[in-house]
Amino acid sequence: MKQAKQYLRAGFQGERGAFSEIAVRQLLGSESDPIPFEWFDGVFHALIEKKIDAAVIPMENTLHGSVIENFDHLFNHDVEVIGETSVRIVHNLIALPGVAFKDVKEVYSHPVALNQCLKFLKDNPRIEKKTFYDTAGSVKMLAETKRRDAAAIASNLAADIYGARILKRGIEDDRANFTRFFLLQRRGGQIKGKMPLARKVSIVFSTRNEPGSLFRALAALALRDISLTKIESRPLKGKPWEYLFYVDFEGSLKESKVQNALRHLEEVADELKVLGGY
Amino acid sequence: MKQAKQYLRAGFQGERGAFSEIAVRQLLGSESDPIPFEWFDGVFHALIEKKIDAAVIPMENTLHGSVIENFDHLFNHDVEVIGETSVRIVHNLIALPGVAFKDVKEVYSHPVALNQCLKFLKDNPRIEKKTFYDTAGSVKMLAETKRRDAAAIASNLAADIYGARILKRGIEDDRANFTRFFLLQRRGGQIKGKMPLARKVSIVFSTRNEPGSLFRALAALALRDISLTKIESRPLKGKPWEYLFYVDFEGSLKESKVQNALRHLEEVADELKVLGGY
Repeated sequence: MKQAKQYLRAGFQGERGAFSEIAVRQLLGSESDPIPFEWFDGVFHALIEKKIDAAVIPMENTLHGSVIENFDHLFNHDVEVIGETSVRIVHNLIALPGVAFKDVKEVYSHPVALNQCLKFLKDNPRIEKKTFYDTAGSVKMLAETKRRDAAAIASNLAADIYGARILKRGIEDDRANFTRFFLLQRRGGQIKGKMPLARKVSIVFSTRNEPGSLFRALAALALRDISLTKIESRPLKGKPWEYLFYVDFEGSLKESKVQNALRHLEEVADELKVLGGY
Repeated sequence: MKQAKQYLRAGFQGERGAFSEIAVRQLLGSESDPIPFEWFDGVFHALIEKKIDAAVIPMENTLHGSVIENFDHLFNHDVEVIGETSVRIVHNLIALPGVAFKDVKEVYSHPVALNQCLKFLKDNPRIEKKTFYDTAGSVKMLAETKRRDAAAIASNLAADIYGARILKRGIEDDRANFTRFFLLQRRGGQIKGKMPLARKVSIVFSTRNEPGSLFRALAALALRDISLTKIESRPLKGKPWEYLFYVDFEGSLKESKVQNALRHLEEVADELKVLGGY
């Protein structure tokens, strides 16, 4: 490690320059050393095994919904949520320095990113779209192969990191494309004190498959005037008739009404896990 | 159209041989003529414009969560849900006839499918993974280019359709990988009578951002002993503090308790849309 000790090692999934790295910067600023991982699973294991201090993972996207895999990792690992941020997904057409727009014959990116730039691709039919495993990775590939007839679609950070240039900025079809990220530490870790005042809580609980069981569980919050900001059900693996519910609500774990609500919820739910306050 | 008139034209997204086409067969059997579309948007428009009789669209996957885009299409188009089915996602290694496993140097598939076969890919490091825009499309590509050094990962139906062979069956990491599909018709269409007795209802409703508003809405179901099987919240576009809720519950639209519950829900929700009973 070249970095001085005070830098937080913050793991994320993807290549350097991924939208997750933008989230790392938004959450931890310049005090962090972003560490890329190939898979989400690897990020969680590295955090548990103390190879990194923090993790930044996407939880949901306004166009594509929840990243279910990460809900499962949160439920199964001894980590806590200590922060959240939203990143607007801005796609840029990126090429190596000196490459002009008219030189571009192919454009590489992750299929999801290509599908979010359909208008641009339709308006420029001479540019052939090519799928690649990663948005930022496609800029990296251009830099490594020195391609001068191709471009990539990725974040502005990816252009910076790989010394490429933005040919067209903001070519996404829908500007209302945001991804919400969680900042995680090991349960009981030391980063939390530096975070802003907590205003939201994330929990997960299971109930039996009985009529009204979710209703009774939500009473614990509603009877105390606590506002939900998200709810999502998910069948329990191997127990097809039982459900997990992921719920976010407004409040702080330090408030007595929140503490009372969680105690009440423990009575009526089969299992309850507080994922964190942030 | 070569088909006789009694065939239902059933639209789906993807290439011929996609998992969605397996869902078409499960839902409509041999009485259907599967019509592929490039985008979900195109499927919905073709249904509304009477270019097809029915549509089969994926709503959620056990590993990846909801297909949010299709919830929005259901909310915005005048269609109704009249059936559902689950397809187990079985990935097969597929090559042209006569190609042996040892000849395979590259494997093509959609990135999500490649990511679901990691154990197979790790066990066979000599095979290079190549991303492609579609699972079934990668088998089609092999057939068109007559590649004898490459394979694809796709459904058994894709192997059948493009005259290819399965080299390895069921190479997915996780067997608990199911996708749930809805069968749709235009609202008031004629297919419904042929479907089995309805046992479930899907609705979507919005509420104001007030503490307890979801709780009051769910009371309409809970007070009548109606069981929820799914709930998911989603922020309303352009109204960041208001929410849509997608809810599935057990029951039939013909039951009086269900009719009463929906009437009650209309009182307490801002807007209510019954997506269908199936």
